[in-house]
Amino acid sequence: MTPKTPTKLEDLQKRIAAFCDARDWRQFHNPKDLALSLVLEAAEVLEHFQWKDGKEIDANIKRHKGEIGEELADVLYWVLLMAKDLDIDLGNAFAKKMKKNEKKYPISKAKGKHAKYTEL
Amino acid sequence: MTPKTPTKLEDLQKRIAAFCDARDWRQFHNPKDLALSLVLEAAEVLEHFQWKDGKEIDANIKRHKGEIGEELADVLYWVLLMAKDLDIDLGNAFAKKMKKNEKKYPISKAKGKHAKYTEL
Amino acid sequence: MTPKTPTKLEDLQKRIAAFCDARDWRQFHNPKDLALSLVLEAAEVLEHFQWKDGKEIDANIKRHKGEIGEELADVLYWVLLMAKDLDIDLGNAFAKKMKKNEKKYPISKAKGKHAKYTEL
Amino acid sequence: MTPKTPTKLEDLQKRIAAFCDARDWRQFHNPKDLALSLVLEAAEVLEHFQWKDGKEIDANIKRHKGEIGEELADVLYWVLLMAKDLDIDLGNAFAKKMKKNEKKYPISKAKGKHAKYTEL
Repeated sequence: MTPKTPTKLEDLQKRIAAFCDARDWRQFHNPKDLALSLVLEAAEVLEHFQWKDGKEIDANIKRHKGEIGEELADVLYWVLLMAKDLDIDLGNAFAKKMKKNEKKYPISKAKGKHAKYTEL
Repeated sequence: MTPKTPTKLEDLQKRIAAFCDARDWRQFHNPKDLALSLVLEAAEVLEHFQWKDGKEIDANIKRHKGEIGEELADVLYWVLLMAKDLDIDLGNAFAKKMKKNEKKYPISKAKGKHAKYTEL
Repeated sequence: MTPKTPTKLEDLQKRIAAFCDARDWRQFHNPKDLALSLVLEAAEVLEHFQWKDGKEIDANIKRHKGEIGEELADVLYWVLLMAKDLDIDLGNAFAKKMKKNEKKYPISKAKGKHAKYTEL
Repeated sequence: MTPKTPTKLEDLQKRIAAFCDARDWRQFHNPKDLALSLVLEAAEVLEHFQWKDGKEIDANIKRHKGEIGEELADVLYWVLLMAKDLDIDLGNAFAKKMKKNEKKYPISKAKGKHAKYTEL
């Protein structure tokens, strides 16, 4: 039996920690550069959709699914690493934020609208 | 007994799907705007570190830990939603990318260095 | 006769220098934070177009033209300041880059296409 | 006598317009993709400073001055093109924003501080 790919945030964070510690990289992990790396990787995701629309985007996703998956994994990497380094419980932060979103965007007001909560 | 906060990627994705479906938001979720939202949220993380260094950053993290956690949760939200929408298995993509990283940055060459793999 | 609004890069840079020097801000202007500020202001431009398309974008531009102008001015501010601080002649850099673009995208190949030069 | 490199915003905009029109590119210039391109180019500037500090940054600027100049020219390109396309007078927008900045950051309060105007 092959083990399932891990999907728990804390397991992914352990994998990252092992990867970084083996390379002695923790010394470089100041919060500003972590946040900067997060933005740069998010920009690489965005680049896949530049100058494209509708069918072109669909075709591009089919053709570059593997690469887009890699870019998303890169963003996830920095989110996980940064949360760990800053001693933020990401699962908790996510649960809290979802509850906040549910209040900010009550179904009665937000249904079928993409307006910001300040404009609902 | 209170249930533990979920931390599996697929459980977080289910939570997001329920949130969006209740608001009938799927119609707005084109890949370009998802990627754009990802970048904008990553920029909000980065903003916490603008014009700050060393001790100022540490003090700022202490003072704004909750907010930074929220911003990281926002980035995570878009990564999860986008992967789901594009039918990308994020756990697999992450595992693959980590293996690729391990090859790109072999311990023997990368230890203690922050150079890009192309410059090792 | 009222003087015309200055539009020469070097005049705009002088205005910025006077503004910063009067506030004794040069001490904070390290290149990393300048670049970071540039990205954050560019993101504010982008935010105006999130979740909008076609007619909604046109309507939004009409309604928020002043604000979008301000955001573009903010991006211009950091480009000008950064070039000055790094001792880069922006007019020259621009002229050089345009010549390079003209070679990278020869009319015969690039006409009517939005592909990257590597894919022409 | 060689002509001086142009530095007036309106002259740079004319150069861009000629470049784009010769390639029949105006059809692709929707505001969302222009803003997106602006962010992506700003990110390329930022990338030059990732994982670097102090002396490393200075050395990197010396070594890559030409490239950084090109990246800044790219950002300038999109600012100019976008302003033109959205019918925004960039010189005016800049002058207005500088006046606003002078009020937001009065010398008496802002001198020697990098705080946001909301925290002065």
